Amino acid sequence: MAETTHIERYGLYEIDLTGTSLGNPYADVELSATFTHTGSGKAVTVGGFYRGDGRYAIRFMPDETGDWRYVTASDDPALDGASGALTVDPASEGNHGRVLRAADVLAGEARAAYGDEIAYRFCYEDGTPYQPYGTTCYAWTNQAPDVQDRTVETLKHAPFNKIRMCVFPKSYDFNTADPAMFAYEGSMEDGFDHSRFNEAFFENLDRRIAQLQDLGIEADVILLHPYDKPEWGFSKMTKAEDGFYLSYMARRYGAYRNVWWSLANEYDLLPHKTLEDWRDYARIVMANDAFGHLRSVHNCIPIYDYNEPWCTHCSIQRVDVTRTTECIADWRRVYGKPVVCDEPGYEGNIYWGWGNLTGEELMRRFWEGAMRGGYVTHGETFIDKGEQVWWAHGGELHGDAPARIAFMRGIFDQAPLDATPLDARMDARRVWPVASALPEGTVLTPASEKAIQYWDVPVLRSGDDWQLTYFGWYRPAYREFPLPAGGRYEVDVIDTWNMTVETLPGTHEGSVRVDLGRQWMAVRIRRAA
Amino acid sequence: MAETTHIERYGLYEIDLTGTSLGNPYADVELSATFTHTGSGKAVTVGGFYRGDGRYAIRFMPDETGDWRYVTASDDPALDGASGALTVDPASEGNHGRVLRAADVLAGEARAAYGDEIAYRFCYEDGTPYQPYGTTCYAWTNQAPDVQDRTVETLKHAPFNKIRMCVFPKSYDFNTADPAMFAYEGSMEDGFDHSRFNEAFFENLDRRIAQLQDLGIEADVILLHPYDKPEWGFSKMTKAEDGFYLSYMARRYGAYRNVWWSLANEYDLLPHKTLEDWRDYARIVMANDAFGHLRSVHNCIPIYDYNEPWCTHCSIQRVDVTRTTECIADWRRVYGKPVVCDEPGYEGNIYWGWGNLTGEELMRRFWEGAMRGGYVTHGETFIDKGEQVWWAHGGELHGDAPARIAFMRGIFDQAPLDATPLDARMDARRVWPVASALPEGTVLTPASEKAIQYWDVPVLRSGDDWQLTYFGWYRPAYREFPLPAGGRYEVDVIDTWNMTVETLPGTHEGSVRVDLGRQWMAVRIRRAA
Repeated sequence: MAETTHIERYGLYEIDLTGTSLGNPYADVELSATFTHTGSGKAVTVGGFYRGDGRYAIRFMPDETGDWRYVTASDDPALDGASGALTVDPASEGNHGRVLRAADVLAGEARAAYGDEIAYRFCYEDGTPYQPYGTTCYAWTNQAPDVQDRTVETLKHAPFNKIRMCVFPKSYDFNTADPAMFAYEGSMEDGFDHSRFNEAFFENLDRRIAQLQDLGIEADVILLHPYDKPEWGFSKMTKAEDGFYLSYMARRYGAYRNVWWSLANEYDLLPHKTLEDWRDYARIVMANDAFGHLRSVHNCIPIYDYNEPWCTHCSIQRVDVTRTTECIADWRRVYGKPVVCDEPGYEGNIYWGWGNLTGEELMRRFWEGAMRGGYVTHGETFIDKGEQVWWAHGGELHGDAPARIAFMRGIFDQAPLDATPLDARMDARRVWPVASALPEGTVLTPASEKAIQYWDVPVLRSGDDWQLTYFGWYRPAYREFPLPAGGRYEVDVIDTWNMTVETLPGTHEGSVRVDLGRQWMAVRIRRAA
Repeated sequence: MAETTHIERYGLYEIDLTGTSLGNPYADVELSATFTHTGSGKAVTVGGFYRGDGRYAIRFMPDETGDWRYVTASDDPALDGASGALTVDPASEGNHGRVLRAADVLAGEARAAYGDEIAYRFCYEDGTPYQPYGTTCYAWTNQAPDVQDRTVETLKHAPFNKIRMCVFPKSYDFNTADPAMFAYEGSMEDGFDHSRFNEAFFENLDRRIAQLQDLGIEADVILLHPYDKPEWGFSKMTKAEDGFYLSYMARRYGAYRNVWWSLANEYDLLPHKTLEDWRDYARIVMANDAFGHLRSVHNCIPIYDYNEPWCTHCSIQRVDVTRTTECIADWRRVYGKPVVCDEPGYEGNIYWGWGNLTGEELMRRFWEGAMRGGYVTHGETFIDKGEQVWWAHGGELHGDAPARIAFMRGIFDQAPLDATPLDARMDARRVWPVASALPEGTVLTPASEKAIQYWDVPVLRSGDDWQLTYFGWYRPAYREFPLPAGGRYEVDVIDTWNMTVETLPGTHEGSVRVDLGRQWMAVRIRRAA
């Protein structure tokens, strides 16, 4: 037996095999491998996939260090019974494995550190906290290679740790060019064979997802979408064809630790697919993804029912044109899962309201969402800054938001894990008890005091130790903050737009007056050591 | 019989009488006069009121030109049976009588000109259109006389045609001083006699309301409010005392054509008064106001049920901190009456979110509200621009909004009377049919085309002749507007912040591309003559 290969934990191990090229191996050949951890006996069976020219592969992402053995199974004798071994070393720095729901990963003290927030938070599978700060480049892997390279280069210097990206090309405003390669064999002229994939297309996608992984960026892979051309037709394949494609994607990409599955963008703009179709598609992805990546789907208008158990989190497009990421408070209540507002409107100047926000307004939406315990995704849609529009093509970023998102990440990276929105109910309707409205003799409880104090602004709080208040479009000359009795506190004045943190001199008790005087301010109050 | 007095139509005619000063004439003496139009025979009975020192008055506002006669009735023989005559001349320029609901005033062609918008609009009783552009100076008549004079001077040059003002003094942040005069006999030290009014206080109020009338400003008189001191106690009078006061107010001020009645500010902060109390109070005002002025009430949190028949219109404080005047679309649907958002937040820098908006944000709320067929009220709360804070004391204005409100009035004065929000339902939830989401073969109707075209921005439209679109915080580089077939159109680009109107060269047909490129823009499209 050959010497075992070493790979790192959460790395990608690939078995390459050669078998039949007769018939249609994409459809006809069954192939899988079972990987067994020699220490624990834990076994993982992974489906393989065909790559053309008689080449087959099986990809495995080990989640435990130590020695693993594998053996293949196939109805092609040439592929059946191949075996081998690998040694899994500890993960290298920066490799934390998949992003999953914190509630599905953590136990004991690590879990307790999140308090009730555990339901709404993500983390890496090694327990490292993860807060998504995504961006949107729908068709970046369908652009010319140099544009793809420039996108990767831009991402190296950008603050994003997730990217929303389609597999199929996109036909939409400012983005109607045909790509050089398609996912299927065939052509626009002669049609595509939805039972045979184009290996060159997927090799490029492999490489791009791996590049994202190297950058620490989660690839939120959008499997289906409606921005199609009749000559492409990928939005109107049969249900069987969709399933065939989905299982191929899940087998081919499941071993990339940085993959998330988004069944569709604007699923409701694919009206020929029913809600039951989406549930079936989720089942297919789950059956073929041996590594249980995050799964969701993204709406245009009717919000998907994220209570369905296959959805690991919400991936929502805001549906009210005014109240956007503020609704995260509602969505947390309704779905009880992590909430990502993946389309809060974009910075840019395209003609539609979803893509002509100022940097200030997009950053307000980022903060309003994060203050309510959710996550917000970036996009950029300047139509007069060169050939590429970031949201569609990638290329370069031009807006004011990315630098502010980097600053914002720094603030929220420092937030306690159990920092909780003070009273999310206030966001839906301003229903808080008001002192003078209560029956005479009513004693205000601390809870009602807090609610009155902060009826107008969102607050994240961790016990009596830490509080963050965000003022958004408000411009108070100053604000008085009551402080918990018995403690001394340090106070940071945060200018979220100018990206400054100014700590007030000294420590404070009882209450503190904080001068503000401009928009986009936040105040952080920390218990002094 | 004496020569008849001449007054103008909608003017104020006062009968002054002398009667008993024994006992408590405020409470004990019944006094009224019946005015009869000698031509039509129309009769109006008006209640009188006591002024102290044996002086009584009855005030009448004739709504028809020609000769009127009156005769008094009283249980004091000295006041009973006094008679006289007056000749009512046509109203002078700028005197259009009371503001009422257009639906209650107009008939025939004048009514038809409003289309279905009639339900949501005001006009003067002579048919002249009236759109409220109010401001807020709660306690201005309770300030020192020179401050009151300065307020009047400011209003002369301000764009406001309505003012929200309390009768009783106000105790609240930045406004806790005791006034020089109170509405009642008595003192803070010895208490007030809620059955005896202080004539000097009311003479000042008479004069101030008359000054507003001279300026063409409606006095939206707030009869009760919760911002009280224990030593004042005007918010906690008995129900009988409240009724006594309300009937006095309605008799004394009903003949001022510029009066509106607001039963209370933040009625729900007076929890010792029940909803049935408010209905009773409305009945008392209606019974004693011979001239049927507009009536409403203003909430803090729970919005009053403006479907109650006594409410002529909505006077709403927005209850969602994010979606403010956009809710006017909902409120029109729910109440079917004119909607004034009397508290959308104010320009200023006070510490609370209701009063620290930038001028840009307040103007956005003004426009968002007007574009949805409602009205929005101004307020100003700078706490660092001198002793007076406009919203409480009056004095001077410091903000950026007033000049922009003047500009806005000019735009909306020119709007067709039947200009109607395109699809108000879109404001609540973005529920519009999307072409690609419809079953294949579905033919889009013009209505759905329109809804798609304008899902993101509010539109006012009058048939195929006129359209106004407001872009608010959006910043499109340009927008393409489809134009109705067969017409040629002129296009105005309106910068609502910089207060400019730029008309594009020439006329346009089919569609027109309008360059925009910055925030707070509107586009007006007019059919060319």
